[in-house]
Amino acid sequence: MTAADRLSWAYLSRVVEPPCPELAALVARVGPVEAAERVRRAAVADELARRTAARRDIDCAAEDLDLIDRRGGRLVTPDDDEWPAWAFVSFGAAALRDKPAGHRPLALWAIGPLGLDEIGERSAAIVGTRAASAYGEHIAAELSVGLIERDVTVVSGGAYGIDGAAHRAALAADGPTVSVLAGGLDVLYPAGHSALLHRVGQEGLLVSEYPPGVRPARHRFLTRNRLVAALSAATVVVEAGVRSGAASTAAWARALGRVVCAVPGPVTSLASAGCHELIRTGAELVTRAQEVVEIIGKAGEFADELPRPSTALDGLGEIERQVYEALPGRGLRTPDQIAVAAGLPGTGVLGPLALLEIGGFVECRDGKWRLARRMGSE
Amino acid sequence: MTAADRLSWAYLSRVVEPPCPELAALVARVGPVEAAERVRRAAVADELARRTAARRDIDCAAEDLDLIDRRGGRLVTPDDDEWPAWAFVSFGAAALRDKPAGHRPLALWAIGPLGLDEIGERSAAIVGTRAASAYGEHIAAELSVGLIERDVTVVSGGAYGIDGAAHRAALAADGPTVSVLAGGLDVLYPAGHSALLHRVGQEGLLVSEYPPGVRPARHRFLTRNRLVAALSAATVVVEAGVRSGAASTAAWARALGRVVCAVPGPVTSLASAGCHELIRTGAELVTRAQEVVEIIGKAGEFADELPRPSTALDGLGEIERQVYEALPGRGLRTPDQIAVAAGLPGTGVLGPLALLEIGGFVECRDGKWRLARRMGSE
Repeated sequence: MTAADRLSWAYLSRVVEPPCPELAALVARVGPVEAAERVRRAAVADELARRTAARRDIDCAAEDLDLIDRRGGRLVTPDDDEWPAWAFVSFGAAALRDKPAGHRPLALWAIGPLGLDEIGERSAAIVGTRAASAYGEHIAAELSVGLIERDVTVVSGGAYGIDGAAHRAALAADGPTVSVLAGGLDVLYPAGHSALLHRVGQEGLLVSEYPPGVRPARHRFLTRNRLVAALSAATVVVEAGVRSGAASTAAWARALGRVVCAVPGPVTSLASAGCHELIRTGAELVTRAQEVVEIIGKAGEFADELPRPSTALDGLGEIERQVYEALPGRGLRTPDQIAVAAGLPGTGVLGPLALLEIGGFVECRDGKWRLARRMGSE
Repeated sequence: MTAADRLSWAYLSRVVEPPCPELAALVARVGPVEAAERVRRAAVADELARRTAARRDIDCAAEDLDLIDRRGGRLVTPDDDEWPAWAFVSFGAAALRDKPAGHRPLALWAIGPLGLDEIGERSAAIVGTRAASAYGEHIAAELSVGLIERDVTVVSGGAYGIDGAAHRAALAADGPTVSVLAGGLDVLYPAGHSALLHRVGQEGLLVSEYPPGVRPARHRFLTRNRLVAALSAATVVVEAGVRSGAASTAAWARALGRVVCAVPGPVTSLASAGCHELIRTGAELVTRAQEVVEIIGKAGEFADELPRPSTALDGLGEIERQVYEALPGRGLRTPDQIAVAAGLPGTGVLGPLALLEIGGFVECRDGKWRLARRMGSE
């Protein structure tokens, strides 16, 4: 992709309030540079001219790209390998085209080491009310850790309550987590979560279809919700009022053909009323992470036992392989824990661990060990 | 029914461990007196001879009838008007005939002012674990009161925990409640509930297919569960372990084509695990009594607004009718409450109430008023 292409994508990302299927169609037809040029000159069809009129003279594409670059981020477009095309396939369905927000994003702004293309089928959204109960936050955290341990990426919206509990637990479990924001990635919202979201950007992924500086607004939260659903194989609602944002995310998930799960709770708690309503209308009742993984598996033939990169391991000896297999998909383990899991004497795992580290299979952190993040075969 | 008939029914009720389809068929063919005679002489088919061998020489029918009579009870047989034939229709289905307990009772022992024929479609079983949580007992009581307020009879098994909470709340709400026991009606079990069950027998109904003196036993609880399900339009499981007695009652309800409802709870509570499993396998998720009534209504076209005996009211003046309509289906109300509900001045309801009392439409208790239990048209 040329610099001119990228500048054009950035310009186009700001020129309309997303999503805008007319603009996406134009870019697909004539490319980003020509599309940007036509929008600038108002040489576009009436509807697109109307929608771009207010911002067509604003061009801060270079500044936007600079800012996101300084923060270690990038603009991901359909022309990039990182573009998660799978997530947006269902937006082509007729039923969705009639919904105002029923269209894929034009492009996505992203900050974080996790690639958008790494999310895939191993992902679940954990969403719910901002006014979560202690029960709800506890369950969100338990689910999040359970999913991370099963190598599932935890997606959420970064809000107070359930979202925050899910992100926080995922980070604590040293697992990948994605926050889809309703404003620019330099406007971390809510303010009380700026430290948390900053960590998500450092260890997981912050995503938004809004360019830098755009402030979250009510309609943007609703528009954002569709991306939470789209980037997740399943959406799990932990606690939600009957007409809540989480219920809207669940509705998007359903519309996109994704699995919708809900966690039951006390019927005396209003915070669980939305979950019970979802279960009544077809959502899967789930009580723990293992069930979510099984449901995702059934839906996407995603096995709980994730395939190990066996080719890369072919050169290993039997003991090294045994030690390697004893490490869980996520999380740190002490040598003693590894020895127990591998069925080897406590001192017998240190040598194999050192060999595995040299081979890039495992990493050591403060005396604990984990699988290396990116294996050769991935 | 002659005294000889009744003695024969009582004899037959003890001579086999129920249910016994062979005996029921014989009685239907030759009548109770002849059936009893043949059983006594072992002049019956092999299977029935085998099943009656141990007890055919025991005849305490007269004592049993005496005992139940002294306690204000009765033996209800298919030849009595009170026999709830509707409850046992589904036992004829092929799928049930293969289950050891999948048959109707031969006869039922009953104590209490409520008639077995009064239960009908306005009934719901509230069942659950003996090891109920505070949450479970609270919900059982709330549901029970809500059902009573909506003129639904509350059926249960008299056990500790959920059953007891349901019965207790029904009695407190001055509503009809039925305990189906797993032993003789003179063996009130569990002992800690003997006062509670005694009250059920005084104000509602105690029922058992076991003659006096029979002690509850494990297989009798399971056999009893089918009667709890059969005598209820819906079975509502409030809290239950995964393989619990309540789950067995729910299974019977399902097999009998009745509605099965379950109340969700915290996923951290083992006492709710059975409910969540039931919901996952098709039980209706319910959170309050109104929902149970709506589900019963849909299943049996049972309207929430019960028809008033309008013909009997035809002779009333408009004010009397207004006051009458202001009284709820169940429960006592002060004159002030009635005045508010009727939209009449506080002193304006006493005269109409007195007229209604004379007409047998309402009853007064300690200065509070309620609808009379049995209206002329019922």
